[in-house]
Amino acid sequence: MVTLSDVRAARERIRTHVHRTPVLTSRAIDARVGARVFFKAEIFQRVGAFKARGAFSRLTLLSPEERSRGVVAFSSGNHAQAVALAARELGVHATIVMPKDAPTLKITATRGYGAEVVLYDRLGGESREGVARKIVEERGATMVPPFDDDAIIAGQGTLALELLEEVPDLDLIVTPCSGGGLLSGCAVAARGVRPAVRLWGVEPETGDDMQRSVAAGHPVTIPLPRTIADALQTTEPAARTLAIVLELVEGILLASDEEIRRAMALLASRMKIVVEPGGAIAFAALLHGKVPDAAGRRIGVVLSGGNVDPDRFGALIAGVEA
Amino acid sequence: MVTLSDVRAARERIRTHVHRTPVLTSRAIDARVGARVFFKAEIFQRVGAFKARGAFSRLTLLSPEERSRGVVAFSSGNHAQAVALAARELGVHATIVMPKDAPTLKITATRGYGAEVVLYDRLGGESREGVARKIVEERGATMVPPFDDDAIIAGQGTLALELLEEVPDLDLIVTPCSGGGLLSGCAVAARGVRPAVRLWGVEPETGDDMQRSVAAGHPVTIPLPRTIADALQTTEPAARTLAIVLELVEGILLASDEEIRRAMALLASRMKIVVEPGGAIAFAALLHGKVPDAAGRRIGVVLSGGNVDPDRFGALIAGVEA
Repeated sequence: MVTLSDVRAARERIRTHVHRTPVLTSRAIDARVGARVFFKAEIFQRVGAFKARGAFSRLTLLSPEERSRGVVAFSSGNHAQAVALAARELGVHATIVMPKDAPTLKITATRGYGAEVVLYDRLGGESREGVARKIVEERGATMVPPFDDDAIIAGQGTLALELLEEVPDLDLIVTPCSGGGLLSGCAVAARGVRPAVRLWGVEPETGDDMQRSVAAGHPVTIPLPRTIADALQTTEPAARTLAIVLELVEGILLASDEEIRRAMALLASRMKIVVEPGGAIAFAALLHGKVPDAAGRRIGVVLSGGNVDPDRFGALIAGVEA
Repeated sequence: MVTLSDVRAARERIRTHVHRTPVLTSRAIDARVGARVFFKAEIFQRVGAFKARGAFSRLTLLSPEERSRGVVAFSSGNHAQAVALAARELGVHATIVMPKDAPTLKITATRGYGAEVVLYDRLGGESREGVARKIVEERGATMVPPFDDDAIIAGQGTLALELLEEVPDLDLIVTPCSGGGLLSGCAVAARGVRPAVRLWGVEPETGDDMQRSVAAGHPVTIPLPRTIADALQTTEPAARTLAIVLELVEGILLASDEEIRRAMALLASRMKIVVEPGGAIAFAALLHGKVPDAAGRRIGVVLSGGNVDPDRFGALIAGVEA
């Protein structure tokens, strides 16, 4: 299992490559929520999402020979951009397998980072793992999975190290949860530094694979969830992330698309920031009273990404009562 | 005329009341514009706009007797919120005269700061000055004008002091221009600290009162401009601001609503920030190649405010090619 020293080692490796993102606060939002909220703004991270941490953490571990054969990743978006950026910066060829229906901004950005993009049709039943594995076999490339990897998990955990350095006395940390890489990495780091801190992950109502897996005690597979939170459309967690969640996390909460949209609108109007749907889900849960024992607490809330087409952002927050 | 030492004195008075806002950069935007751009992000200022600087600068000069009689301001929005906040924080009663058709967010926020709001019908021909002046006469209150005041101008200028402290070797500074308080204050401060820096103000195409006034050499009045930049709907500059602009500013540029919307969409997608239409106009001019001799330069761009209803923000950037 990933340890606190793995997270600290990842941090040394990625230090020159990623931003130390700011922690934002708002009196208006504190008053609204009835707690002190500290937003870890990964929207300002390189590639616009926390995924840069994991990607640099993994790619800085490649041997010279592995570097020469390149890397492959499959992703609905932010992980793709992150691997593409890390590869370019480290002089490694990257092939990214992306669903055809991913947001245009994410596909364009991935190509913009110099990666070769291979599109597949997830709605037509193609498996991204299959497409990616074929490339691995043909080219001898190294697969960089989005969350089922110790170096990735340790990289994401660096976010929680920074957050607790800035606000050492947090009572709670709430993060979005997809495959569990971010949540488990943050749990290892945060509980390692501050054993008393309590962590919650938040999934889309329709994409509750982690919540079901926690209940079952083993990874449970669900159909591809329909949700506005495109970054959180996983169908099952990894055994690796689930094990950490079972040991170190209080539990998994759910938020609806409507709750996410309200959180996005409030973050736009009060904090003047653009947060993508999946990136706003932790705040959505807090805003709608779903985080247990939150009143009066000091709460770290991870805003995990800001990659949303302006057009789509506009449509999502239009008409929403913030 | 306002001097650099007035700006420095204003800065001491307001230091504990306003934020030192961050200066943001983006490699993607630099590449797009072909220059090094340093965004002074007043969207993160208190009340969400630079107007907090001027309001605190003016209200901290009130005598104890003036404080006891209260203040009056008229404003289409951000100045109103700023005066309301400064008044509350300094224990002064504030009456704010606002147009009925101002953005809901701004009216609600002004009331939220504890001010008494008096609405008037600007489209029906009522004069806000008239409404405000009546209150001044009845209550002996002090009028706090949005720009025609040395303390207000000096307060807005503090923004440029901060910007040049952070980036001392700027070649250009571009700011939005309405009545000219921000532009003239920044000109006094910036040219005082760095005589070689060149300043440009940007107005809406339909609201070119400052450009016309500069050409005429005296304040020229235009009809109420129709523009999405609600914060820039002035009909004439003050002689006071015009005199500074004539002496210290290179010139006034114009940007269309469509150019503003494109700038807003790009700031949302690349920088993950919400900037209101008037707040994005300086960047709109730069983005569309309107700032003379900008190529390869180091350019300070003022993002002057972020107060826009999420709903309206969504509608404005939806369908825009960023």
